[in-house]
Amino acid sequence: MVNIKLTVAYDGTNYHGFQEQRGTGLATVQEMLEKSLAGILHYPVQVIGAGRTDAGVHALGQVVNFREEHWPIPAAKVPFALNSLLPGDIAVVEASLVPDSFHARFSAKAKTYRYTIYNHPIPAPHRRLYSYHVPWALDYPAMAEAARHLEGKHDFKAFQAQGTPVKTTVRTIFKAEVNRDGPEITFDFCGDGFLYNMVRIMTGTLLLAGKRKILPDQVADIIHSKNRTQAGTTVPPHGLCLMKVEYDL
Amino acid sequence: MVNIKLTVAYDGTNYHGFQEQRGTGLATVQEMLEKSLAGILHYPVQVIGAGRTDAGVHALGQVVNFREEHWPIPAAKVPFALNSLLPGDIAVVEASLVPDSFHARFSAKAKTYRYTIYNHPIPAPHRRLYSYHVPWALDYPAMAEAARHLEGKHDFKAFQAQGTPVKTTVRTIFKAEVNRDGPEITFDFCGDGFLYNMVRIMTGTLLLAGKRKILPDQVADIIHSKNRTQAGTTVPPHGLCLMKVEYDL
Repeated sequence: MVNIKLTVAYDGTNYHGFQEQRGTGLATVQEMLEKSLAGILHYPVQVIGAGRTDAGVHALGQVVNFREEHWPIPAAKVPFALNSLLPGDIAVVEASLVPDSFHARFSAKAKTYRYTIYNHPIPAPHRRLYSYHVPWALDYPAMAEAARHLEGKHDFKAFQAQGTPVKTTVRTIFKAEVNRDGPEITFDFCGDGFLYNMVRIMTGTLLLAGKRKILPDQVADIIHSKNRTQAGTTVPPHGLCLMKVEYDL
Repeated sequence: MVNIKLTVAYDGTNYHGFQEQRGTGLATVQEMLEKSLAGILHYPVQVIGAGRTDAGVHALGQVVNFREEHWPIPAAKVPFALNSLLPGDIAVVEASLVPDSFHARFSAKAKTYRYTIYNHPIPAPHRRLYSYHVPWALDYPAMAEAARHLEGKHDFKAFQAQGTPVKTTVRTIFKAEVNRDGPEITFDFCGDGFLYNMVRIMTGTLLLAGKRKILPDQVADIIHSKNRTQAGTTVPPHGLCLMKVEYDL
């Protein structure tokens, strides 16, 4: 028995997310990975993904694993074998053998998501699939200050999309960082887990501070309210990217 | 009478080039620009483009102009008016009034094209539409040295796609520069004009030096041969971007 961990990058533009959630019949990234594995093994394989990214969301460091009795290819050659079978918008960037107990989702210790804003009066055609265009001026220091209030262990109920029952809405955000590179502003969120749409709602809330509709300190009040209507809107999926999943290995 | 100059950025992925050349019925960038202008003026308008970029080729700084008797919008507001009517993969980044005599193509003094190579064993899904994936190792200093041989006034007959009659195949390359940023290698070519497919053939030739199939000095021999079969292959269009068109204004 081998347990294989894959690190996967994809452009989510043309997929209904990593894992089908609402039965639309559109292609998912998981399906494409499983198809490429079946192309090598000649029988069906199921992979476990670390994060169920939504339709249109991208990944540079999604992690999946799968267990097989017999596996014909050395780990170092797995990316090349799978990439030759995958479409151009999905790539396996790394493969390694992991202990039997490794589970891409349950073993994850931290995930990092990045949300990218293209902040310029004129939209950028070549960045439109990978960033959210915000044409108005944003108060960058206010957003950086607001982001710090998201860090720590909090009940993030106010930052959860409705209709998705979970045991607890408490999560720990290890880091919430805002950076700027020319017209691009990135929000990096590293945490032990994220509620449904949480990153997109946190970003929408930081944009409220950026537009000076709230003061940076009010982010703390929004957390305490546990009320979804107090937080910002859910920004669109195409600005979001799963950057990294970390494990104790 | 006003003569208006527009600087235009576009993602060429979904277009049959800037200007239709072979009557395929696919959309062109020129058509989309003319449609957006007609949306403002309520009658047909024809624009003149500086460079006839091919299908799949991108632009950050294409230049077009058009002349009108009556024009209702101040230049500073033109980008916003047109961008509200254009699809997301085309954007007008700047507009200005220019002298009557200005002609986007004939007045151009220099054009800069960039060709981007993604040089890594693993392909990058999010860069696939904007760079050419070269998985094997490239000799970067050899390419930089080879590029210098392209600079100057030369007969570039060896770097011209067949079947396109032009008066002269002599062109001046002011600058041919190779740069690297992580896995991305860019080739910047600034010249007074370019023959059909010339940038893509020059890049294909520099890649021959990068793969050590020719020595950097042999680029000079290829130029002197005036023989297309001596130069490298025509690399694919999606790595190419028209960066800038310069004028004496």
